Amino acid sequence: MKKSAIVEKIIGNLSQYSPSQNPATAYAPTNIALVKYWGKRNQELNLPVTSSLSISLADKGAETTLSISSIKQDVFILNGKLVPATSSFHRRLSLYLDLFRPNNLFLDVNIVSTVPIAAGLASSACGFAAMALALDKFFSWQLSSQQLSILARLGSGSASRSLWSGFVEWHAGVREDGMDSYAEPLHEKWPELGVGLMMVSESEKSISSREAMQLTIETSELYKSWPQKVEHDLKTLKQAIQEKNFDLLGKTAESNALAMHATMLSAWPPVSYCFPETIAAMRRVWQARADGLSVYFTQDAGPNLKLLFIDQDAIRQYFPEIEEIRPW
Amino acid sequence: MKKSAIVEKIIGNLSQYSPSQNPATAYAPTNIALVKYWGKRNQELNLPVTSSLSISLADKGAETTLSISSIKQDVFILNGKLVPATSSFHRRLSLYLDLFRPNNLFLDVNIVSTVPIAAGLASSACGFAAMALALDKFFSWQLSSQQLSILARLGSGSASRSLWSGFVEWHAGVREDGMDSYAEPLHEKWPELGVGLMMVSESEKSISSREAMQLTIETSELYKSWPQKVEHDLKTLKQAIQEKNFDLLGKTAESNALAMHATMLSAWPPVSYCFPETIAAMRRVWQARADGLSVYFTQDAGPNLKLLFIDQDAIRQYFPEIEEIRPW
Repeated sequence: MKKSAIVEKIIGNLSQYSPSQNPATAYAPTNIALVKYWGKRNQELNLPVTSSLSISLADKGAETTLSISSIKQDVFILNGKLVPATSSFHRRLSLYLDLFRPNNLFLDVNIVSTVPIAAGLASSACGFAAMALALDKFFSWQLSSQQLSILARLGSGSASRSLWSGFVEWHAGVREDGMDSYAEPLHEKWPELGVGLMMVSESEKSISSREAMQLTIETSELYKSWPQKVEHDLKTLKQAIQEKNFDLLGKTAESNALAMHATMLSAWPPVSYCFPETIAAMRRVWQARADGLSVYFTQDAGPNLKLLFIDQDAIRQYFPEIEEIRPW
Repeated sequence: MKKSAIVEKIIGNLSQYSPSQNPATAYAPTNIALVKYWGKRNQELNLPVTSSLSISLADKGAETTLSISSIKQDVFILNGKLVPATSSFHRRLSLYLDLFRPNNLFLDVNIVSTVPIAAGLASSACGFAAMALALDKFFSWQLSSQQLSILARLGSGSASRSLWSGFVEWHAGVREDGMDSYAEPLHEKWPELGVGLMMVSESEKSISSREAMQLTIETSELYKSWPQKVEHDLKTLKQAIQEKNFDLLGKTAESNALAMHATMLSAWPPVSYCFPETIAAMRRVWQARADGLSVYFTQDAGPNLKLLFIDQDAIRQYFPEIEEIRPW
């Protein structure tokens, strides 16, 4: 099934809608998965093997403004700089706009991102979420957030979770067309929960998460146990959130991240996003915990860690270098 | 079931046998598993969850000499030094001898080990294998190598594989008493195969492999896929050995080792034998391979790597620091 067919299912006949003559702007926060999305059951539609659960980072995200282009091609500006038409970033965004554009309509797209470059924070998550929200305004589709989550997912899987602040669960769904694979916010808030970015390297990743997850699915025997791991961790994490049990949340998130990286290690060729500095950082966290500090980490498809904690002051003493990000 | 019951099954009534008045000496090489032993189905009898396959290191091992002690306790000498009676090493060896000793017989045990200290080479494997062989001579039991493999296993699981040179397979077996859980040598020889020890740290391990495997079995969801991984790797490794296909052997061994460490990473608390230097060493191997060199690694419950290769000269250029060990 094609993405365009899903778009038609949701929006209907696109020619019914006219673009706004005024610019349309939308913001979406990026998110960090506490129970990871790792593996697609459908690569075209970004349908995941498992559900996942994230926390949004309120002030790290993308603000995207759309207006009609005066020339016959899309123009993307990222943080004030023109994105080269030959870049893969340009191509990926234009292909996404192809799903929605009426004949001969091209767009000026101005993206202001507050996501630190190369920090391993999902810039495509907030990017496609902000794009979906901006498109909805621009064409006055008036879609539900469930529908917008599906549209964002067609751009990038984790974008489905970036339409809200706080905790968000992306339901894997079972349908082939993915109409039941969308995210929803959880009711619970937890303002005391802190997230810290522990940069260990700004090097580019050697393999994209898209490629790494596909390689893992195809070659890792241990991946076969990943769905059960996620099922267990999701249940536990929701319980931890409900009970405001920080250690249970931290343990579950750290274990889930390590298990995701474990599935990659057992792929062939092996995939490791860990640099020597990553292991050193993990060992610092484990040592801090052995010293009695309540701190845990999660790690995405990159070498940096994200620390999870409650007590900011104590964390600052152990990890003075971390950049703190408030989820709330 | 107790170890002593197994000993009786194999040897019969121990009081039939008298100790030699002359010293009895035996040597056993240590071994490196290419498909790992990770996880016990019975902790008392060291019965493994899966089969495993190793290569022995001809000139790294233990030579053990037994004679009757003139005092009323066992005396252990390791490389010329008295082992303190209060050490866990002394206790473990004495408990093993308890399985075999007639009333009031104590032994002088002189162990000469050529296994580098703290190198992550299994010193207990060759230690208990040499002990079983020496006991067989000392008491003139005249046991088969299958029976000796079982006796060595009661001391340390991997010792069951240390009675032979070359490739050795330890059959997991299915019986509760473990009488079908013993090792056998493979017929194939491969004199060109090289093993190199890549030391990255001489630090003590923070958790014993015995504890780590138990924790993994009890808490790692991914461990549930380990038996299938081993089944696949064993089949592939045997094929590689038969065909003298080095890349297939190397890939299978490296993937199996990484998968073993992956099961530990997803245990709770997470277990990692990787130091930052270990990751750096792995990356050097991966880079060498990307440069066209045929080299692979395996890693046991410690931070050091063992390199597998054919072309010694090429390896020396990339890894001048490694200590080479000839398996043949």
